Amino acid sequence: MADDFERMWRDLEPVGRASASGGYFRQPFTTSERELAAWFVEQAETRSLRIETDEIGNVVAWWDVGEGPGVLTGSHLDSVLDGGAFDGPLGVVSAFAALDLLRERGFVPARPLGVSVFVEEEGSRFGLACLGSRLAAGVVTWEQARELRDHAGVAFGDVAEGGGSRLLDEVGTFVELHVEQGRDLVDRGAAVGVASGIWPHGRYRFDFTGAANHAGTTRMEDRTDPMLTYAMTALAANKQARLAGQRATFGRLEVTPNGTNAIPSRVIAWLDARCSSDAALAALVEAITDQAAGRAGRDGTRVEVTAESVSGSVSFDAALAALVAADHAGGDWPVISTQAGHDAGILSAAGIPTAMLFVRNPTGVSHSPEEFASMPDCLAGVSALADTLERLAR
Amino acid sequence: MADDFERMWRDLEPVGRASASGGYFRQPFTTSERELAAWFVEQAETRSLRIETDEIGNVVAWWDVGEGPGVLTGSHLDSVLDGGAFDGPLGVVSAFAALDLLRERGFVPARPLGVSVFVEEEGSRFGLACLGSRLAAGVVTWEQARELRDHAGVAFGDVAEGGGSRLLDEVGTFVELHVEQGRDLVDRGAAVGVASGIWPHGRYRFDFTGAANHAGTTRMEDRTDPMLTYAMTALAANKQARLAGQRATFGRLEVTPNGTNAIPSRVIAWLDARCSSDAALAALVEAITDQAAGRAGRDGTRVEVTAESVSGSVSFDAALAALVAADHAGGDWPVISTQAGHDAGILSAAGIPTAMLFVRNPTGVSHSPEEFASMPDCLAGVSALADTLERLAR
Repeated sequence: MADDFERMWRDLEPVGRASASGGYFRQPFTTSERELAAWFVEQAETRSLRIETDEIGNVVAWWDVGEGPGVLTGSHLDSVLDGGAFDGPLGVVSAFAALDLLRERGFVPARPLGVSVFVEEEGSRFGLACLGSRLAAGVVTWEQARELRDHAGVAFGDVAEGGGSRLLDEVGTFVELHVEQGRDLVDRGAAVGVASGIWPHGRYRFDFTGAANHAGTTRMEDRTDPMLTYAMTALAANKQARLAGQRATFGRLEVTPNGTNAIPSRVIAWLDARCSSDAALAALVEAITDQAAGRAGRDGTRVEVTAESVSGSVSFDAALAALVAADHAGGDWPVISTQAGHDAGILSAAGIPTAMLFVRNPTGVSHSPEEFASMPDCLAGVSALADTLERLAR
Repeated sequence: MADDFERMWRDLEPVGRASASGGYFRQPFTTSERELAAWFVEQAETRSLRIETDEIGNVVAWWDVGEGPGVLTGSHLDSVLDGGAFDGPLGVVSAFAALDLLRERGFVPARPLGVSVFVEEEGSRFGLACLGSRLAAGVVTWEQARELRDHAGVAFGDVAEGGGSRLLDEVGTFVELHVEQGRDLVDRGAAVGVASGIWPHGRYRFDFTGAANHAGTTRMEDRTDPMLTYAMTALAANKQARLAGQRATFGRLEVTPNGTNAIPSRVIAWLDARCSSDAALAALVEAITDQAAGRAGRDGTRVEVTAESVSGSVSFDAALAALVAADHAGGDWPVISTQAGHDAGILSAAGIPTAMLFVRNPTGVSHSPEEFASMPDCLAGVSALADTLERLAR
């Protein structure tokens, strides 16, 4: 099993990797991501699994044994821009390795077992995270999704075939294994953990508009410069999140015209906000919006805030989490919460009993080339996932 | 003459104009700017002028009459991104119209008269303003210029033929007519003004670096987010410039990886700074750099500041300015200073006696689609330019 895992990991290592940073660029329907999708089909065929796809880009490889609603496990193969190797692929590689381990153990499942990949989990290309699972779960319609556009103006409807998805029709339970994106398991000294829930989170587009003018000749007092309104808002968001013990980040910007000697006419900035409760999220975004509007009033600029996606808090099935966490070789796994969104959260909110396994990340860093998990911890994750599948499919 | 001017103006109007904003995109060696260059040659040929080019992209159309060092007038045809119609082309169209007016008057110059266009005046593509005139004047070498790269990574050496320039060898005086980029002439109630000098100005690249990480899972207190250091620096630059009565602008940004759910690893921001004296400019940039470094220390980020170009203060030839300003139909033209850089500043600093004429801009707005000058004011500019050329070439 260790050999299997390491071989698969080596297969994926060079795909979409930037030599300059060591980070990954695996945006959906780009060459590198499609290469990973082809690799997935090859792995499924090697294991005589039946491939089922939908018209959105999602795929499941089914081990057609047993009867009744299936047990699905998997993750995603796309990355953020300049992301790490583990976020997504670890869950897919671990799923195949866990299936291999079950076969080695001679286990015959009483239910179908599937390995899944949902497309555009990161929202790094079309802006809406978990797009594939949202479409599969029916919480976003094709009519809404087809119009989403990437940075270059290409629509999702231009790259995906489009239409509906029946992939989840026969799914009874979903389990996603993922690298931890924080230090909780490091602090607890555990290689593996189980998720209790996901913080509510959202993406909000702030459109700051003012008037372009010459950077040299326009007196400071005659300007309506949206960059200043944005800058103050970015600092305010940080301060508000600090005070409230929550999270707020401005990590993406578009400046128009973006010339050195022109005062900008427009700054578009995307706020990523996450809180421990739905009420706290609403309060945080409101506080940031109020401060932006106040500053816009003083700067003579305008600000408009659009919620591009908001995901409510997710509480995973507590009985299922307890079942997944109990009685492993290393004792019970700890049950922890996370601030990161996942396809598992979408499926859970859509009513599918869902569990998540996390693998320890020594640095806690994610969405960065620094993201890491040790090989022994990865293999502990595969064992935990195999144990879980055995419990669910027996 | 009015007909000539209006016809030329109409020819240029649609070239490189964005229908969405009404602004112009005339970056050097792009289709629209090359279309303008071809228009220039056509205008020269219509007037039986001799075309002289260099290997950089600069061009002069000579009226080969008289003897001795020539009198050169002209401006540029490139624009900032999403710029106005007047900044540059007004000086070129006015030069041809002034030449037509001199011929109508039956004036026979005692010296050669040339109409010039210097390439990449705005620095909107390769980042160094007045690139063409700097190369022609020998203050930047081809070896330095060829390595300058545009946003897409294309080098100046890939689009320009390269080599030296002898265009200025036989030039005795340079006169540039330009739309005013402020409200000084509006306040004075004058259609035309003459430049006394140009404020010193510079472009400084601020490289803010931190560590990319997940926007959701990384606690606020565990971050080293260069966006915060940048945001505080942008506000500090504005405040410092306000207090000092100078100018400081951050109008151009590059964020890496620029993803909504990733804390940036790097923010590159370009500062445009202009002051009434060289000492004030140095003090302003030092104050902004100090505040950026202080904040970087608190944020755990790093900041590195590179002066990409610094132009010292320019005082145009005072006797020449007085000659240009005196005894017009409307009385003497006012002599005013400007905060905008111009090819005239480069040529003046290189030792060529140089003057500038400004045409009133009712809004004062420039580097924006809102930039404007009325037709009567433009024609007053042409008359003033023709008078000036007559005085210099008689």
